[in-house]
Amino acid sequence: MAIADTSEITLAELQLSGRNHSIPLEALRHDITPIGLHYLLTHFDIPYVDAASWRLEVGGLVERPVSLSLDDLRARPAVEVAVTMECAGNGRAHIEPHVFSQPWLLEAVGTARWRGVSVASVLEDAGVRDGAIEALFTGLDRGIDGGEEQVYERSLPLDELLRGDALLAYEVNGQPLPPQHGYPLRLVVPGWYGMTSVKWLSRITVREEPFDGYQMRHAYRVRYEEDEPGLPITTMAPRSLMVPPGIPEFRSRERLVQAGACEIVGRAWSGGAEVVGVDVSVDGGETWAPAELGDASLGRWAWRSWRFSWNAEPGEHELCCRARDAAGNEQPLEPSWNLGGYLNNAVQRVGVTVSA
Amino acid sequence: MAIADTSEITLAELQLSGRNHSIPLEALRHDITPIGLHYLLTHFDIPYVDAASWRLEVGGLVERPVSLSLDDLRARPAVEVAVTMECAGNGRAHIEPHVFSQPWLLEAVGTARWRGVSVASVLEDAGVRDGAIEALFTGLDRGIDGGEEQVYERSLPLDELLRGDALLAYEVNGQPLPPQHGYPLRLVVPGWYGMTSVKWLSRITVREEPFDGYQMRHAYRVRYEEDEPGLPITTMAPRSLMVPPGIPEFRSRERLVQAGACEIVGRAWSGGAEVVGVDVSVDGGETWAPAELGDASLGRWAWRSWRFSWNAEPGEHELCCRARDAAGNEQPLEPSWNLGGYLNNAVQRVGVTVSA
Repeated sequence: MAIADTSEITLAELQLSGRNHSIPLEALRHDITPIGLHYLLTHFDIPYVDAASWRLEVGGLVERPVSLSLDDLRARPAVEVAVTMECAGNGRAHIEPHVFSQPWLLEAVGTARWRGVSVASVLEDAGVRDGAIEALFTGLDRGIDGGEEQVYERSLPLDELLRGDALLAYEVNGQPLPPQHGYPLRLVVPGWYGMTSVKWLSRITVREEPFDGYQMRHAYRVRYEEDEPGLPITTMAPRSLMVPPGIPEFRSRERLVQAGACEIVGRAWSGGAEVVGVDVSVDGGETWAPAELGDASLGRWAWRSWRFSWNAEPGEHELCCRARDAAGNEQPLEPSWNLGGYLNNAVQRVGVTVSA
Repeated sequence: MAIADTSEITLAELQLSGRNHSIPLEALRHDITPIGLHYLLTHFDIPYVDAASWRLEVGGLVERPVSLSLDDLRARPAVEVAVTMECAGNGRAHIEPHVFSQPWLLEAVGTARWRGVSVASVLEDAGVRDGAIEALFTGLDRGIDGGEEQVYERSLPLDELLRGDALLAYEVNGQPLPPQHGYPLRLVVPGWYGMTSVKWLSRITVREEPFDGYQMRHAYRVRYEEDEPGLPITTMAPRSLMVPPGIPEFRSRERLVQAGACEIVGRAWSGGAEVVGVDVSVDGGETWAPAELGDASLGRWAWRSWRFSWNAEPGEHELCCRARDAAGNEQPLEPSWNLGGYLNNAVQRVGVTVSA
């Protein structure tokens, strides 16, 4: 990746970047991202929750409102699913003109094994009443966004929740959730961008009208003008990332590769449809050749591995990778702009120097 | 903290900031930092290590060179110690003129329970020979720094190692080291800045001459001119940090506090001597009052908690905290510059708006 020497990055954005962790690209080698390397976006502060007194309230348009403890949830049948989760703002720092928000480069992603209970089963037990159309998921994290004081909360259509694989997760990678991933309970919605998977859940409210809070009405919408409603952001567009080959320079992260056989490896995912191919270019995108896709043993909702054999010849090269999915979506070669700086899934570009 | 709207932060520094995690300040509430919230600096790439074939080689000026597996190390008597670790470059992004390297603001710190074997016991078993003066710790992480291709390695004086509490850690917070913290084995040197605690250890070499590799000779020295040798960086200077009170605005991180009783809490530490006091100012450093120090139950090498009761009155306030240690060292009010941007332990300043 060519990195400009100057930019419009402010100290406020640097502060966001320090708080909100991204995955170091070499960690793409792990099928399941170790805790601490998964990307993390926290809108406000990470709440400090006492699980003993914590409850999940399930209410609104249901027959039997219920208040569940963590033990109640753990006593229910458990499901576990490997999920690749990505921030909808991933790639924002490469978009021009510059958008002021969490300045992700490319690395706002991770794959984890989430364990918990099916959202559908909890809603079915509570008894969704006629006329209900969606459920609102409310977190414990409070702050100010867009000038509005709020707790973080977002809604999902009931038909999505009742037929889908969404879960209320109390474990990640075989451990209780750490504070930063939503302890003691979070929503995980496979295939969707991460903003949907509300952390530090306190309440599920079944509703007969669409929720129009800030995080639905204003944030996480593709808009080109401030006063247009725009389109809501839902499932992840296809993306592939490679582990940059060779060794890095500490500060610039520029890569040095030995000439000869070089295996390039990476991951690819898409929320809307299965990944069906990854192409690799070693000449900055002029020519492309197919990578070998790994198996789907992690399941439909997790990334696929891929590999590409390159005969590295001395000189400067720009490596690129590009995923496409079964719905015909393919990564674009260049970013496109929108007000929030969302959905930039342009191909990754890794500059390398090959030494003889 | 007042954050300027413009700065000299480049995309290369943003890339470093995305890779190298800092602790979100609200996580200072935890005595022991949860995995994933501890600060993390990786000079090169995180190595992908197969622990089954991994060995620690102990050699150089010893009677009995030895090659130890992870099981060999786990079979030895274990020690566990809670250690506060901080990066020597913490605070760098606040130093003027700007220094290009990992742009830490204030949050490059964490406290963990490290478990492993005493370095002294391993050296004593190997039999240090006459004339030896230091031990070199060599990691598996390879890259380029200062124009030199290298593996990360640093040395320590033998007298420090034989009398001190340094350990070879294979567990953190009751779990095997995650990849990013040095799996399968790392050095942990209590009281010292983090650069000393070499991760992904492959070799300990006892030496009769000081090691003059890049990370000793050039990096991690306080220098004011490129061609002077400067002074080596050793133990952590005193620092205190508070959990910013109230709630944040998402992008700016500015804080909103309700008027009335407000308890300010934080942590303080010093590597050279025990922390003996923390003072708090609610008027930007014009007047100071003592905070109440918590007990030392985490032990000598971990941070102390502190608390301060503030009656928050409506308006704009700048909160500051300042630690001092038993050796008479106290945090300065303003940063001072050096070439590497090291050792900036100037007091934290948190701007808050108190609403009626």
